[in-house]
Amino acid sequence: MCQLLGMNCNVPTDICFSFAGFQARGGVTDHHRDGWGIAFFEGRGVRVFLDPQPSANSPVAELVRNYPIRSLNVIAHIRKATQGQVRLDNTHPFQRELWGRYWIFAHNGNLLDYAPALTGRFLPVGSTDSEAAFCHILQCLAQRFPDGPPSAVALHETLRELTIEIGQHGEFNYLLSDGEHLFAHCSSRLAFIVREAPFTVAHLADQDMTVDFSRHTTPNDRVAVIATVPLTDNETWQQMTPGSLVAFRHGAPVPLGDTPTIASQPSRATGSR
Amino acid sequence: MCQLLGMNCNVPTDICFSFAGFQARGGVTDHHRDGWGIAFFEGRGVRVFLDPQPSANSPVAELVRNYPIRSLNVIAHIRKATQGQVRLDNTHPFQRELWGRYWIFAHNGNLLDYAPALTGRFLPVGSTDSEAAFCHILQCLAQRFPDGPPSAVALHETLRELTIEIGQHGEFNYLLSDGEHLFAHCSSRLAFIVREAPFTVAHLADQDMTVDFSRHTTPNDRVAVIATVPLTDNETWQQMTPGSLVAFRHGAPVPLGDTPTIASQPSRATGSR
Repeated sequence: MCQLLGMNCNVPTDICFSFAGFQARGGVTDHHRDGWGIAFFEGRGVRVFLDPQPSANSPVAELVRNYPIRSLNVIAHIRKATQGQVRLDNTHPFQRELWGRYWIFAHNGNLLDYAPALTGRFLPVGSTDSEAAFCHILQCLAQRFPDGPPSAVALHETLRELTIEIGQHGEFNYLLSDGEHLFAHCSSRLAFIVREAPFTVAHLADQDMTVDFSRHTTPNDRVAVIATVPLTDNETWQQMTPGSLVAFRHGAPVPLGDTPTIASQPSRATGSR
Repeated sequence: MCQLLGMNCNVPTDICFSFAGFQARGGVTDHHRDGWGIAFFEGRGVRVFLDPQPSANSPVAELVRNYPIRSLNVIAHIRKATQGQVRLDNTHPFQRELWGRYWIFAHNGNLLDYAPALTGRFLPVGSTDSEAAFCHILQCLAQRFPDGPPSAVALHETLRELTIEIGQHGEFNYLLSDGEHLFAHCSSRLAFIVREAPFTVAHLADQDMTVDFSRHTTPNDRVAVIATVPLTDNETWQQMTPGSLVAFRHGAPVPLGDTPTIASQPSRATGSR
């Protein structure tokens, strides 16, 4: 099982605090040692830092932890390999371009007997089920909306349909962003928190580290943080319902549609954690 | 005018030494202050480090200079903006996927009145002439070879044709790689050196720094370094002929075809330096 971390904000924000706790799970407080990566959208651009070595002792992770890159949308991933060797080309998050926008994708789970019919428009470079699913999603979006990006509602609805289809192959928690929205799908395990005024002090679950957000924010700031397992131990995180696909924008969930991607089956979902 | 740096090797090699000199040109020994980037192929994977701030004082550049990432193909770029604002999405090198391979592109020059007819398969995210040219090239390759990558000879020939077409719009020095070959096109200014046994001591032109390559190599190693301006002042670099498109593989130029992309017009080429 890998771990996901996402951040969506209404003003460019750095992820240094959350990343410090997340980084520790890549070999210190948890066993996800098979590489890690993080993508920062800045305007229309994106920069992706990847390292096939464990995040806990990666020089690249040290840079990310100490260099405050301010971003509206961030997706990070630490890997415990299920399919595909430990190699750079299998390291999440993955990046492609569609409609003149960069898309970033990271997956936590395991898809079995999954071999989508890919036309060639988007092809995996590595050998993970995750990158195949990403290519499949983008191919379908490109086919359905050849003239450019649809409305957010139509995009959400199409993603929901595709997620149902792909999710039949197994556990499919994912984060996906085009730099504007951050889509989070909970197949079995994903939680989020929206931080907004009045800001308080947060304490990491994985390291003895606190931050007083009221010192680093303005009253209008709003930040949503999404993670496989809550990153702090003194705040209330919202566990996402298995089957929910939530679009975040400007630091909060956007009501685009609430039809779940899987029927509510908590016992089955719990079983696959 | 931007500056290009490329490396192509027969064994995975780090670029720390060359990068130290190159980095200084981004704000210390030269005025290319509008961002920089570097891409390392590792196997089929690629990682791209980008920073819209000057390389001379970029924390990301410090990491790259001190973290020996070993690669067969590297492309780096420091930018002096001609078209497009100083933003992350305009920072070279650019990355796309075609045929299940990553492609990396960086450009030095300026294309005027250049608006290629793009079908949508590859679209620029930023606003540079360079990214538009990259998308144009990949679109044409995808159209001409829909079933997958052609032979190296056919690829070289097609690139040559496209380069002639695009080069009619202006200065078009570029580096392009799919992780196997590194293509270097000299429109006005590009030089390279092939280092092989017996290895000697090299001294940077931009910093008082030397390296004794015989201490870091085996007799079978071979490394080609390509740069806008030679990086060392005690070695003989080969100035590329304007109009030449050279494919490097395993650390040396590969004879794939020697038809130039432009007629030999040294006076005109000199004038555009």
